[in-house]
Amino acid sequence: MGELKLDITMSLDGFITGPNITLEEPLGEGGESLHEWVFGLKAWREPHGLEGGEEGPDGDLVREAVERAGAVIMGRRMFSGGSGPWENDPNPDAWWGDEPPFHTPVFVLTHHEREPVAKKGGTTFFFVTDGIESALDQARAAAGDKDIHLAGGAEVAQQYLKAGLLEEIMLHVAPMILGGGTRLFEGLGPDDAKLELVEMVESPKVTHVRYRVG
Amino acid sequence: MGELKLDITMSLDGFITGPNITLEEPLGEGGESLHEWVFGLKAWREPHGLEGGEEGPDGDLVREAVERAGAVIMGRRMFSGGSGPWENDPNPDAWWGDEPPFHTPVFVLTHHEREPVAKKGGTTFFFVTDGIESALDQARAAAGDKDIHLAGGAEVAQQYLKAGLLEEIMLHVAPMILGGGTRLFEGLGPDDAKLELVEMVESPKVTHVRYRVG
Repeated sequence: MGELKLDITMSLDGFITGPNITLEEPLGEGGESLHEWVFGLKAWREPHGLEGGEEGPDGDLVREAVERAGAVIMGRRMFSGGSGPWENDPNPDAWWGDEPPFHTPVFVLTHHEREPVAKKGGTTFFFVTDGIESALDQARAAAGDKDIHLAGGAEVAQQYLKAGLLEEIMLHVAPMILGGGTRLFEGLGPDDAKLELVEMVESPKVTHVRYRVG
Repeated sequence: MGELKLDITMSLDGFITGPNITLEEPLGEGGESLHEWVFGLKAWREPHGLEGGEEGPDGDLVREAVERAGAVIMGRRMFSGGSGPWENDPNPDAWWGDEPPFHTPVFVLTHHEREPVAKKGGTTFFFVTDGIESALDQARAAAGDKDIHLAGGAEVAQQYLKAGLLEEIMLHVAPMILGGGTRLFEGLGPDDAKLELVEMVESPKVTHVRYRVG
């Protein structure tokens, strides 16, 4: 059976976005620079419909995660930047475009019901209003024996960690200090997760560290 | 000429101590567990006057840092836990014992003058009241061509980073969430340090990552 895995890039000071998130800057000020290591990779460019790109250990890790993922779970704010009823959301679909990079079912946690939205390339967004366990059950059913990729944001990751449902964290630590933004591990304590270091992958751009969550 | 290097253990959520530091728990609640990876190492036990211990990649890194260090800089709170005039400090010497593990000159940043304190085994504490640059000059003179080990705490590290005086950070990231305490990178921003990832060392217990600071 597949596992629920968080795969996320964090700054050295613990942030997964910069400060002041807006529709124009969904990752906050400076937040996009966190992901610079990934934009040039063939393994990232392919699912985004872009030509070319580099191969290497960074790319191998990204490709493995993409190929292992049979479903994705994300929070509402990561989906649209919004909250509240959908009819008031200024950006109900725009962040992920007409052909989102997931190419799998994506389960969006929200308090507001909405019909599924099918996009090109195999991505369908399903909106789950009855909690994280239900979203995980639905994602598991959709993923078959593949993994479920927990895409974020931080609050959703914290909820799954606290509930003991997260099985692995693949953390890409970017060598930068953001100084503000959204902290990945905010509001958690030592008893919320026992982590075991299982793998490190060396790369000149970023530190990849894989943890089992107990 | 030697370099100013910070060598420090941090939790995955960015803390170098736990919350609620007291004289009895100088690393705060849970903070001592950050350093569990080091207590069993021969390279750590030897300078602490303890027998036995393990060898391995963790130990090699610790030994290299110990052997390269010709002087140490630390903050007043790391020295004694106190602040203010020395005559009011309930613990003016006690944390580091009669034979401290440094075996080099140690320059303690403080606002309050005090005569040097010589201990067994080659450690003499000098008290520097005229700022971080003066402490660095004095440490450099004492260290000769060896490195200057910036021992902490967080505020002192932040001051040296902001002043552009720190040359290397060797970060040992312990696989744990502390949830509170002293953040290493508090109050810094993207412009305070350009970091370049130069080395990773794999170990089952902790992630060692070396950064050049530009």
